[in-house]
Amino acid sequence: MSGLQSRLESGADAKAAVLVEALPYIRSFWGDIVVVKYGGNAIGGSEDLDLFAQDVVLMRSVGMRPVVVHGGGPQIGEMLGRLGKKTEFRDGLRVTDAETLDIARMVLVGKVNREVVSAINRHAPIAVGLSGEDAALIMASERDPELGFVGDVDQVDPGIIHRLLAQELIPVIATIGTSAGGQAYNINADTAAGAIAEALHATKLVYLTNIEGLRRDVNDPASLVTTLSVDELEGMMSDGSLGEGMIPKVASCVAAVRAGVGRAHILDGRVPHVLLLEIFTREGVGTMVCP
Amino acid sequence: MSGLQSRLESGADAKAAVLVEALPYIRSFWGDIVVVKYGGNAIGGSEDLDLFAQDVVLMRSVGMRPVVVHGGGPQIGEMLGRLGKKTEFRDGLRVTDAETLDIARMVLVGKVNREVVSAINRHAPIAVGLSGEDAALIMASERDPELGFVGDVDQVDPGIIHRLLAQELIPVIATIGTSAGGQAYNINADTAAGAIAEALHATKLVYLTNIEGLRRDVNDPASLVTTLSVDELEGMMSDGSLGEGMIPKVASCVAAVRAGVGRAHILDGRVPHVLLLEIFTREGVGTMVCP
Amino acid sequence: MSGLQSRLESGADAKAAVLVEALPYIRSFWGDIVVVKYGGNAIGGSEDLDLFAQDVVLMRSVGMRPVVVHGGGPQIGEMLGRLGKKTEFRDGLRVTDAETLDIARMVLVGKVNREVVSAINRHAPIAVGLSGEDAALIMASERDPELGFVGDVDQVDPGIIHRLLAQELIPVIATIGTSAGGQAYNINADTAAGAIAEALHATKLVYLTNIEGLRRDVNDPASLVTTLSVDELEGMMSDGSLGEGMIPKVASCVAAVRAGVGRAHILDGRVPHVLLLEIFTREGVGTMVCP
Amino acid sequence: MSGLQSRLESGADAKAAVLVEALPYIRSFWGDIVVVKYGGNAIGGSEDLDLFAQDVVLMRSVGMRPVVVHGGGPQIGEMLGRLGKKTEFRDGLRVTDAETLDIARMVLVGKVNREVVSAINRHAPIAVGLSGEDAALIMASERDPELGFVGDVDQVDPGIIHRLLAQELIPVIATIGTSAGGQAYNINADTAAGAIAEALHATKLVYLTNIEGLRRDVNDPASLVTTLSVDELEGMMSDGSLGEGMIPKVASCVAAVRAGVGRAHILDGRVPHVLLLEIFTREGVGTMVCP
Amino acid sequence: MSGLQSRLESGADAKAAVLVEALPYIRSFWGDIVVVKYGGNAIGGSEDLDLFAQDVVLMRSVGMRPVVVHGGGPQIGEMLGRLGKKTEFRDGLRVTDAETLDIARMVLVGKVNREVVSAINRHAPIAVGLSGEDAALIMASERDPELGFVGDVDQVDPGIIHRLLAQELIPVIATIGTSAGGQAYNINADTAAGAIAEALHATKLVYLTNIEGLRRDVNDPASLVTTLSVDELEGMMSDGSLGEGMIPKVASCVAAVRAGVGRAHILDGRVPHVLLLEIFTREGVGTMVCP
Amino acid sequence: MSGLQSRLESGADAKAAVLVEALPYIRSFWGDIVVVKYGGNAIGGSEDLDLFAQDVVLMRSVGMRPVVVHGGGPQIGEMLGRLGKKTEFRDGLRVTDAETLDIARMVLVGKVNREVVSAINRHAPIAVGLSGEDAALIMASERDPELGFVGDVDQVDPGIIHRLLAQELIPVIATIGTSAGGQAYNINADTAAGAIAEALHATKLVYLTNIEGLRRDVNDPASLVTTLSVDELEGMMSDGSLGEGMIPKVASCVAAVRAGVGRAHILDGRVPHVLLLEIFTREGVGTMVCP
Repeated sequence: MSGLQSRLESGADAKAAVLVEALPYIRSFWGDIVVVKYGGNAIGGSEDLDLFAQDVVLMRSVGMRPVVVHGGGPQIGEMLGRLGKKTEFRDGLRVTDAETLDIARMVLVGKVNREVVSAINRHAPIAVGLSGEDAALIMASERDPELGFVGDVDQVDPGIIHRLLAQELIPVIATIGTSAGGQAYNINADTAAGAIAEALHATKLVYLTNIEGLRRDVNDPASLVTTLSVDELEGMMSDGSLGEGMIPKVASCVAAVRAGVGRAHILDGRVPHVLLLEIFTREGVGTMVCP
Repeated sequence: MSGLQSRLESGADAKAAVLVEALPYIRSFWGDIVVVKYGGNAIGGSEDLDLFAQDVVLMRSVGMRPVVVHGGGPQIGEMLGRLGKKTEFRDGLRVTDAETLDIARMVLVGKVNREVVSAINRHAPIAVGLSGEDAALIMASERDPELGFVGDVDQVDPGIIHRLLAQELIPVIATIGTSAGGQAYNINADTAAGAIAEALHATKLVYLTNIEGLRRDVNDPASLVTTLSVDELEGMMSDGSLGEGMIPKVASCVAAVRAGVGRAHILDGRVPHVLLLEIFTREGVGTMVCP
Repeated sequence: MSGLQSRLESGADAKAAVLVEALPYIRSFWGDIVVVKYGGNAIGGSEDLDLFAQDVVLMRSVGMRPVVVHGGGPQIGEMLGRLGKKTEFRDGLRVTDAETLDIARMVLVGKVNREVVSAINRHAPIAVGLSGEDAALIMASERDPELGFVGDVDQVDPGIIHRLLAQELIPVIATIGTSAGGQAYNINADTAAGAIAEALHATKLVYLTNIEGLRRDVNDPASLVTTLSVDELEGMMSDGSLGEGMIPKVASCVAAVRAGVGRAHILDGRVPHVLLLEIFTREGVGTMVCP
Repeated sequence: MSGLQSRLESGADAKAAVLVEALPYIRSFWGDIVVVKYGGNAIGGSEDLDLFAQDVVLMRSVGMRPVVVHGGGPQIGEMLGRLGKKTEFRDGLRVTDAETLDIARMVLVGKVNREVVSAINRHAPIAVGLSGEDAALIMASERDPELGFVGDVDQVDPGIIHRLLAQELIPVIATIGTSAGGQAYNINADTAAGAIAEALHATKLVYLTNIEGLRRDVNDPASLVTTLSVDELEGMMSDGSLGEGMIPKVASCVAAVRAGVGRAHILDGRVPHVLLLEIFTREGVGTMVCP
Repeated sequence: MSGLQSRLESGADAKAAVLVEALPYIRSFWGDIVVVKYGGNAIGGSEDLDLFAQDVVLMRSVGMRPVVVHGGGPQIGEMLGRLGKKTEFRDGLRVTDAETLDIARMVLVGKVNREVVSAINRHAPIAVGLSGEDAALIMASERDPELGFVGDVDQVDPGIIHRLLAQELIPVIATIGTSAGGQAYNINADTAAGAIAEALHATKLVYLTNIEGLRRDVNDPASLVTTLSVDELEGMMSDGSLGEGMIPKVASCVAAVRAGVGRAHILDGRVPHVLLLEIFTREGVGTMVCP
Repeated sequence: MSGLQSRLESGADAKAAVLVEALPYIRSFWGDIVVVKYGGNAIGGSEDLDLFAQDVVLMRSVGMRPVVVHGGGPQIGEMLGRLGKKTEFRDGLRVTDAETLDIARMVLVGKVNREVVSAINRHAPIAVGLSGEDAALIMASERDPELGFVGDVDQVDPGIIHRLLAQELIPVIATIGTSAGGQAYNINADTAAGAIAEALHATKLVYLTNIEGLRRDVNDPASLVTTLSVDELEGMMSDGSLGEGMIPKVASCVAAVRAGVGRAHILDGRVPHVLLLEIFTREGVGTMVCP
């Protein structure tokens, strides 16, 4: 029985164990919608993007219905620089005049969105790029006249997303919104991801970030929070223990979970295959927000 | 009976006559797919674009299924200029290196496509932007190593278009193709429109141009051809009586009609509502190519 | 650019304008059910009937779902005369004995209904004649023993109409009702049209008459009412300002609009293509009753 | 066990035996289309009509799909008489001018058809009257200029019948045909029944007549034929052993069976419930024509 | 007219009368679900089983949807005897240890169920055997630790039954239940039949027994009850006028009718074709319990 | 970054690697039918059965459609022994008289089949037991009068299996066949599995055995064959290099692959999760037969 023996030694048992561990997760997430916010920072490194694309295709392979939302701040900034266009920031938000909006849209929809779509399509030709302007997906209005064409989400019409999901496709969304009159607005991608998850009644809303997760003490790596309730998270928001850049993500997590999204996750996008590990294994990764 | 009288004077009879004239056309085109190539030149003037958008929505309103394909050469050229990127032309085709491709894609998908989608959505929120890269829509390969990332269409998978049409949406397509390995290529929009019309078994393929139609003698406005057979058109191609810029359009007309597309049209996009007039009235506009 | 010029002179722009005007109406009425009562008086002149048939087919062509209800009093009277059958009238209603009923049914179903069906089918073979007796469409009971087989509508089962509409056919209904026991009754066509519109939750109920519309002062052509509310109309009914013959129409308008039918219209059937003008243009024709 | 005993004496066993006999027939005819030609002669006696209606509803109850076709010669003749309209006969066919056609149509569609529909609806409200003019059911053309508006069947479009059958309704058809241009024609009902059975690929075509069946010797009741092949029947047609009035029926039987109809039957409509006996029992009734 | 005469004498009229009597029943039970409990006692005699099978197939033939539930006490007892396995009874219930359960299941599912399925399939191959363990059909739990693996029904999931009925198949159910953890239990078949009828919202629940029906006085054959209300039946249960063996049947009748089952019947399974007679004729057989 | 570090050390990367390896297999087998023959020998050990059940449920979880076929020779033999029933063997086949058949069926359907169904249902309540007698699944006839009720498969009607698969259930099949007349036959389970795989056009046919796979030299463990063509396998059958007990399996592999089944596998059922390893990993296990 040396053949059997050698097989065991070659790791067959270990492989079987991983598959068996994944079984109840695969079954329980069948058909579930997961909205994944993929940050603009992460898009630079094409290897990371490739691993991410592979994970999303795998989720789709086992019956989940991922929806990708992405930003693109760094890429917009770089293009503005190349074109010699100066922009001003107020409270961390870029003042967006008509030309800036035009460039932002061009970069988000024509460059960043395309790169994410291409990365997925290299694994399986099932990604379709969308802008929030398509088929009334993201209706928006001006946030503040001083900020120009920076918009707030008024309403999400998830019809086009449901149609694509029903065809087993993966929507990849650039977060440009539109008014009824056809004026485009630039929308914060973290906020848009939360609003889309709400409108879809998603099972999960996942933020892929460049931190390990939330910390109770921002300076203490050992204070990483693995699970917390939406009430506790709201407490952390108000007591100022969170970094500035986390606020749109965290506020969207709170709003989405309060509105019926099952779970929100803040994961470390730098860990290879972090989506697979979170969803299909018992490995604790990042921070999970429960109702 | 003065009320009736005044009504007649106010043009009611004339209105009724137009509606009655349109009836058999509306009925007979019910459900038909019409591929409309809208040129990059035409996109600049936003009023023209608005009239075009209105026509396309009207076609959809009465049960036709329009598919819009657009180019964007002038807009790409302008952006290359702003970025100080020099490009070379060979035989009228732009030599396209990786950076040029990136910019071309960004402009086509992120700017020109968006403007067409927005223009339609101002009338009814039913346009959805697509790139040929989405869901394996346009598979392409390199035409000539010397031209860089200029591609020829290998295959059109019309699945995603059919899905959107089935949902009563209007696909608006930027003609970037992709290889199986995920390499993008810039595709001539006239050629792509013909290939898409073939793959969809369209009833009509319409080119909106800035000329009145084909002329037997390019210098004689009186030599406008209103109807000709695909054989005659092939004759005109080979005897050199057509201008250089018309060749991709005319070759695509020939190929599409030979492959089963019902009719091909070369219309003057400068005439207001030329699409409506062509489709729903007996007015003779432009040149029609029959099998 | 003389070609373009001549085109404009030939009325192309005017045609385009009519089509553009019709656009929002066509879109908004898509799929809507419109019940049209066509009077027996109007049926005599075959040219009028042909124009009417054309209008109904056009409505169907652009996605509306017309349902035609017709009377036939003059034709019944003429046949009774030819057969030497004398009938008595009480309060304007014909006393209907068994033989009279038999003749009335024969004329309505076998002659008038057939003429309307044929007129439509000459444009498109999509009309199907129905009697209220078919598939329990109009259940009725005796109004008054002294009137014999004159019936009141007890219930409308719109099942067979919905089935035909779902198949893109045009039902043409003769208003003979039936009791559960199989006794036929002659039903006032104006009243039946209202009851059918109610049962179908129609968008519009249209009476084609031989007057221009309602007048506030029956003798003053200038007092034509173009729009009024159902409350105002009820006021006009009770203050006696309406002619006798208008009562069943007006009462049915009131009942139908109160029961959820969107709009009721009293139009002048003598105006060519009055249905098209009312539905697809901004021309004010006849009287419209709103909730 | 006296209760059981009395039950047996009361005929329970005999009833069970009939039900058990009917079982294999009911199962095997499930979903089958049976075209029944019901003669105008038979319609006079309302008791016979009621038994016929009951049989048709029973067939429908057990999953068969009956289609009724009827004539109405005697009723047309009577109405022509009442109206003092004289008509000429040539070769046994009524010369049909425009007025005669109008009266024939009125009687067939408005009187005879209504009586059959009513008779069925008294048992279950599932009958729907049709004329061959409805929805292009019977397309016809002139047989002979000398005969006027007497038509031959050019084509049967069974679409409307299939739609009604799919809704578990019973179509009752008056055999008026129509040209594409809308001209009505009177059609022999026996011939029309055969053409309809062919177009529907019916399982059975049944003629209810006032004879017991076909006889080899027309004067000898003992020569009744119970079963014969379509070849034998053709032989009988050519050797003159059939009565004049049987020719359209017999010719239609031959044509229908040759065109794929499973069986044709000539039954004695005077036997109560003859349809039930033929279909659901082993009783030999009338004449059956096999391929 | 001697042919007609002889036909009448041969019983054609009587046959027609039975068919006509059955008509309203067949029509009214179309699509209805009838749960039939077939007792283990009855299964021995293969001729009785064959008649029963024929009745069930006939019901299915005319559009009813029968569901068969069976017991098998005698067969289990016999097998235990052959295997020399002794069992104890408490309050009329068999104490069921693991081995007894295994044997009971084997006999019920592998022998009795198979015989019923085979008997039906000899008439039409549409029976499918089920155990309550299949697809979570009967979830059960221990009734009393002293009785071992005797179970009470906790829940019936009728999904698998509906799926088979939708395919025009006849489910034949052996009443083994299961816990969520996979432990099998033996379930009283009378009780299970009632619970299944409730879960299916059956029109009828029929017990085939070896008595004529319920008697008011158990010793007086003349006191047979043909119809009674569920309240009256509950009275008979509490006043002790019913035999011991009838209690599970009667209690299930009460529970099922209270839970919405239309009618419950206790019939004499020894009467040939008793199911047909009950359902399709006016013969009074057995006892009917109404709401 | 110690958290990330510890995660890597805890095997997260290894887990991710297994999931990524499984991805292309899961995707490519989506919707595929796999027929798994599970041997009677294997059923004894309930732990093995539990692992097998888990594997089958996992396959179903990721969209495959497993169909289980089982034997039960040892269990039949044991029950015959307990009942003191002696049986004779001819050429390795049990002579099966009526009583033996009855017992074999009872054990296969009532005991072995139940155990497999229960084992699956403990993981998810989606197994449904079938006998080849249900709904005409396996039609069979006598192989040899001397062998009694031992049958050969004449035809497989996979209708009931397709219906259950369409409902996402797992059919578990005991291989009793039936003649049209209702006579049951015992069928070799290896042969039946092949015939079922053919009828279903299965992607894979898998035999779980108690050997490691086929050997070129039956005595040399090192001669294990991992892949061979159907032609090579046929060669091995004819040159006698296979053990007697392997013949039905091997012959069925040959027949099934020749008839269009994609692959046949002979796996070692003693390896834990061997089905998962074969299907979802690159581990070489057992012997694969290709076209």
